[in-house]
Amino acid sequence: MAKLTSRAEDYSKWYNELVVKADLAENSGVRGCMVIKPYGYAIWEKMRDEMDKRFKETGHQNAYFPIFIPKSYFEAEEQNAEGFAKECAVVTHYRLKSDPDNPKKLIVDPDAKLEEELIVRPTSEAIIWNTYKSWIQSYRDLPILINQWANVVRWEMRTRLFLRTAEFLWQEGHTAHSTKEEAIEETEKMLEVYADFAENFMAIPVIKGIKTPSERFAGADETYCIEALMQDGKALQAGTSHFLGQNFAKAFDVKFTNKEGKIEHAWATSWGTSTRLMGALIMTHSDDLGLVLPPTLAPIQVVIVPIFKGEEQLNQISEVAREIQRKLIAKGISVKYDDDDQNKPGWKFAEYELKGVPVRIALGARDLENKTVEVARRDNLTKSVQPLENIDLYIEELLKTIQKDIFQKALDFRASHITKVDSYEEFKKVLEEKGGFIAAHWDGTAEEEEQIKNETKATIRCIPLNNAQENGISLISGKPSKQRVIFAKSY
Amino acid sequence: MAKLTSRAEDYSKWYNELVVKADLAENSGVRGCMVIKPYGYAIWEKMRDEMDKRFKETGHQNAYFPIFIPKSYFEAEEQNAEGFAKECAVVTHYRLKSDPDNPKKLIVDPDAKLEEELIVRPTSEAIIWNTYKSWIQSYRDLPILINQWANVVRWEMRTRLFLRTAEFLWQEGHTAHSTKEEAIEETEKMLEVYADFAENFMAIPVIKGIKTPSERFAGADETYCIEALMQDGKALQAGTSHFLGQNFAKAFDVKFTNKEGKIEHAWATSWGTSTRLMGALIMTHSDDLGLVLPPTLAPIQVVIVPIFKGEEQLNQISEVAREIQRKLIAKGISVKYDDDDQNKPGWKFAEYELKGVPVRIALGARDLENKTVEVARRDNLTKSVQPLENIDLYIEELLKTIQKDIFQKALDFRASHITKVDSYEEFKKVLEEKGGFIAAHWDGTAEEEEQIKNETKATIRCIPLNNAQENGISLISGKPSKQRVIFAKSY
Repeated sequence: MAKLTSRAEDYSKWYNELVVKADLAENSGVRGCMVIKPYGYAIWEKMRDEMDKRFKETGHQNAYFPIFIPKSYFEAEEQNAEGFAKECAVVTHYRLKSDPDNPKKLIVDPDAKLEEELIVRPTSEAIIWNTYKSWIQSYRDLPILINQWANVVRWEMRTRLFLRTAEFLWQEGHTAHSTKEEAIEETEKMLEVYADFAENFMAIPVIKGIKTPSERFAGADETYCIEALMQDGKALQAGTSHFLGQNFAKAFDVKFTNKEGKIEHAWATSWGTSTRLMGALIMTHSDDLGLVLPPTLAPIQVVIVPIFKGEEQLNQISEVAREIQRKLIAKGISVKYDDDDQNKPGWKFAEYELKGVPVRIALGARDLENKTVEVARRDNLTKSVQPLENIDLYIEELLKTIQKDIFQKALDFRASHITKVDSYEEFKKVLEEKGGFIAAHWDGTAEEEEQIKNETKATIRCIPLNNAQENGISLISGKPSKQRVIFAKSY
Repeated sequence: MAKLTSRAEDYSKWYNELVVKADLAENSGVRGCMVIKPYGYAIWEKMRDEMDKRFKETGHQNAYFPIFIPKSYFEAEEQNAEGFAKECAVVTHYRLKSDPDNPKKLIVDPDAKLEEELIVRPTSEAIIWNTYKSWIQSYRDLPILINQWANVVRWEMRTRLFLRTAEFLWQEGHTAHSTKEEAIEETEKMLEVYADFAENFMAIPVIKGIKTPSERFAGADETYCIEALMQDGKALQAGTSHFLGQNFAKAFDVKFTNKEGKIEHAWATSWGTSTRLMGALIMTHSDDLGLVLPPTLAPIQVVIVPIFKGEEQLNQISEVAREIQRKLIAKGISVKYDDDDQNKPGWKFAEYELKGVPVRIALGARDLENKTVEVARRDNLTKSVQPLENIDLYIEELLKTIQKDIFQKALDFRASHITKVDSYEEFKKVLEEKGGFIAAHWDGTAEEEEQIKNETKATIRCIPLNNAQENGISLISGKPSKQRVIFAKSY
């Protein structure tokens, strides 16, 4: 197995190679669309199931809305349309027919042109708010707390596996409320759900914040986000929660009678996370040997590798290995016993390191004699010899420790990559030499924001929630500022 | 709440009303596409999770392939292309732009025409086998046992909620094997998984069989199916499992080196079930009052309704009701306690009957005195008074009984609707007067099959597996036949 390109050598190449070699995903024959392979999909399933559980615990239900959005719906909310019209897949016909010049070929049947074009959903506000119109008459019909797991399509020009693909999988929550306050509360609650999920399940530290107007979701009054930091010092937006005000209710004429008998437009939120989180996962934890997975997300948490010569020895080792496997499975730990005799232990070690299996147990003839096993941690690459007795309890604790340590490592990395700067020169220097999050003063204008973006490619990732108030002077205009905002280059 | 149209009055109308009134699904603004509402989606989730479990138990993994199929892939397998080209959504452009004549409107940007049109997948054999090409080199890469949960689009002209929609949700298994025997074994195994799921989870009796060549999946060498019988005497195909031979391997040039070092094409299967199963569920069990759900599929298995006058009485009842709820939840039973004071008990009874909640517990002041509850079964509409003591154990057993009884009822209905006929006159008479499955002799030709279809609208649903051999004479041609096949009108 050829080694991965190292991160230091070429970070971007390292990422692409890792995604493919670890069997997470690959490019398909369809421009910009990926195939999510079983190993990658198994990780996504764990993320999805955990998020789904948290959505349900916070009172949401799943539903499913059509993949197609008629062009006229798409036009209804102007900002939203503008934001997504430039990169969308458009269905114009509903039939193919044999090519008269070459009967083995198919051509679009010109007689099967749609009266109105359909857009493959890039996001579902339009189709969902068109539906909510008939669901909402009274304050008694509110709130509506719905989530959808779906595929969406955005015709991105430059694509990268998981990070930016023409089609991706995601969840999109779409809620309707009778008051502005309740909708804002929902927006903030879901941001909290995302942050907690990212940190305590994916072991990815995130900064919670609010986007500047220029970085808002098209159609939102306010966009909240969680921002993670990748090992190359670039930021990755890991989830967003939007307060949509009454924009979609007005666009789709969704009104209700309130408790006082007055008619008003409903208040909306939407919030989403996607398979992009797979990219965040990979780039937060992994190393030059391959994936590093927090135990919560590992399809295989423990692999047992026998070190043997000959069938007889294998049989003796297998007996012990299977007993360990049984005990661990009884504790709800997923375990693979790899007794394949075609590949050598060294090959297997490298393979499971590449795949990010958190714990490897090696078991040889001497271990049998000593009643021990060798336990290797994927995250920090340490090994130790452990007594066979109560190995299940040891592994159970170890997995918890690994989960914590992986998070702490990412937290430490981030702490060492948040830099306060007070001048534009320093800003550019830090950005160039170190990257990471840069906390700096901003004058609050789109002009300064844009100039910085054009000159450095750094954007304001967010204005952190509960931000410390501090008097300062903005980077370029020199105007007074009351707080620092977070800048970074980003994915 | 207006009553449902009865089945006797207008079966089709009953179905449509029930789907909408029970909050399962509704038509969307997009032609032929439905919105699956939270209550309907919760039922589908239960079906999906149970099937997913069974697929994994039989060694399959999930993955995800692109929604788009380039036209050239689509052309590669001729039968398949022919079968699906006539009703597919075709993406021809990737951008909209402002209409110069009306800046508020969007038009398709003629400069953003795709070089090659993309088909929204009607089924994924083409894109998947194009992918498998690079995954399969040696017999060691086989078998590949993959399933995908996805949305697909078939541009059906006449649509009905769940039964036939332009977009629907489904799972599609796509496996690759090194031998014909192994692929056939897989095809049959998955049919067995479907049949077991239908009968033992959905309580829907099915006949397992093989399709005639004219009813085969486009691109299959053999199509196996499970056929269910609806209450109006029409059949519904509830799942199919296809042996695809080497058709797709040849179309996409998927070859491997076998154990003997020879190169051959891989063998394929595919198998699918869809949200159509929701239609089967509804039409197998439900009645004129609404849905009847087997407890396995009920989002709410038990509802507790207090019968009270005044707040004090409600408080007393609530105390007992909440204790029952706690006990039932501890047993893994989903329970709703409906203490809403806006609707009367009678309204609630009707509502939960409509929604198919299997068990209703009513609890009034007299019950408190007597330490009893009233238990009503949704399936057979019987009521009984039960002691409060050990009510959790009683309900637990009752849910099992209901599951069995619902299945038995459907089984009895089917038994009384399988008719053996020996003449075409009798065939037409039974079909007209009673419907159901008709077991009759067939001469094995597409001609006789088609004539019967044209004259009666009945098709051969399947040739049952392990069919009894019996000498007979075919319905029209009078040629000798060795076995009866199953005819019916179908959805």
